[in-house]
Amino acid sequence: MKTIEVCLTPELIHQHVLEGKFVVVVDIFRATSCMVTGLACGVSAIYPVSTVESCLALGSTGMLTAGERGGIKIEEFDLGNSPFEYQQDFVKGKLIAVSTTNGIQAIASSAGAQKILIGAFLNISATANFLIQHANHVLIHCAGWKGTPNLEDTLYAGALIQWLGKSFELEGDSAKLAKSLYLNHQHDLLAIAKESSHAKRLAGFGITDDIAFCVSTEVYSIVCHMVGDKIVTI
Amino acid sequence: MKTIEVCLTPELIHQHVLEGKFVVVVDIFRATSCMVTGLACGVSAIYPVSTVESCLALGSTGMLTAGERGGIKIEEFDLGNSPFEYQQDFVKGKLIAVSTTNGIQAIASSAGAQKILIGAFLNISATANFLIQHANHVLIHCAGWKGTPNLEDTLYAGALIQWLGKSFELEGDSAKLAKSLYLNHQHDLLAIAKESSHAKRLAGFGITDDIAFCVSTEVYSIVCHMVGDKIVTI
Repeated sequence: MKTIEVCLTPELIHQHVLEGKFVVVVDIFRATSCMVTGLACGVSAIYPVSTVESCLALGSTGMLTAGERGGIKIEEFDLGNSPFEYQQDFVKGKLIAVSTTNGIQAIASSAGAQKILIGAFLNISATANFLIQHANHVLIHCAGWKGTPNLEDTLYAGALIQWLGKSFELEGDSAKLAKSLYLNHQHDLLAIAKESSHAKRLAGFGITDDIAFCVSTEVYSIVCHMVGDKIVTI
Repeated sequence: MKTIEVCLTPELIHQHVLEGKFVVVVDIFRATSCMVTGLACGVSAIYPVSTVESCLALGSTGMLTAGERGGIKIEEFDLGNSPFEYQQDFVKGKLIAVSTTNGIQAIASSAGAQKILIGAFLNISATANFLIQHANHVLIHCAGWKGTPNLEDTLYAGALIQWLGKSFELEGDSAKLAKSLYLNHQHDLLAIAKESSHAKRLAGFGITDDIAFCVSTEVYSIVCHMVGDKIVTI
């Protein structure tokens, strides 16, 4: 039987076996939503890095730099962490080095998986179809917020479980929690997403359009995965 | 404003400040349900201990011994981990030393709180009323299963949030997750409880009556708390 499990925060990833699994890393607000948007809009590849310094070092080799800390753009970087910035013409054909608060840590701690995919509501249907065709064991790795579970990534986990349908068996109660959350709110994702602590934090900075965009489904039809140290479309 | 937060597993408790908070430890299947049942049925005090050896050592001083590992009674102990065992006449007036897989760890890692309460569906109303009267900041500490979140403890967290009503503000997304889970299943707690991994594990051992009893609300009207190294009624 094919299986699907959910890790609610990188702090719990050590409880999961990664070997032989397709891990879908998700940081809805906003790292992985930005990555999917960028790659769909013509970015050649995205390099996730953990520190501002290593991001700037890649920038000095000609890459664009992007990212935030605590939801705020880093001043020296070319881009912040809004998906709309990744839709601009000048990113086409470029390499982008990215460093964000939570998403990068979840990507780094997924090392050892059979394959690492980058998930977002924006391309959930394409990702689900790819997994149905290729994966036997799926682990959805939620980036959370500074080590704690969050609503929006858990909501995505529940949504992807539904998209994957009945051919995957749920393993562990975190998957059941995520599924219940999604089923309870599937007809108004934006309303529950706005309740998340991070959405409220972003709204405090005046960032509200990003929230609505990041919970839109089926905007893009690409699938994104890690190859070596970079993220590209399949 | 009064606040309420939820920690989904002891592995995440380091992300919460315990000082100044009323921590409600919950291990629905079955440690804290047993403790509440025992104290309601006349047990004088319960001593939670981490190892089988320290439990047996207390047993040699005249206490009854109780507990399980992986859901199975420990052979040398007087009692297993079923609430029905704690309803027997011979436990009245006794001290009981208890060691279980998950609940004890959650109790131990709550040290530093202003007060530690022992929660169960069985006395949820009494616990909620006590908190409304006495607590400014509540943290519901779910014992989970071997470090992972579980359905039944999260369900209790959501239920207690509802019982506490609007005078407490939710802090953090785990509290919102728990509330959503409860609201989605409040009219049939047993159905969702049966879906939990641990309920299925217990059902595999033929233990099904315990599941239904442990999700019954308002069976007992006592409130249980830690005083030093023992659990007693308030």
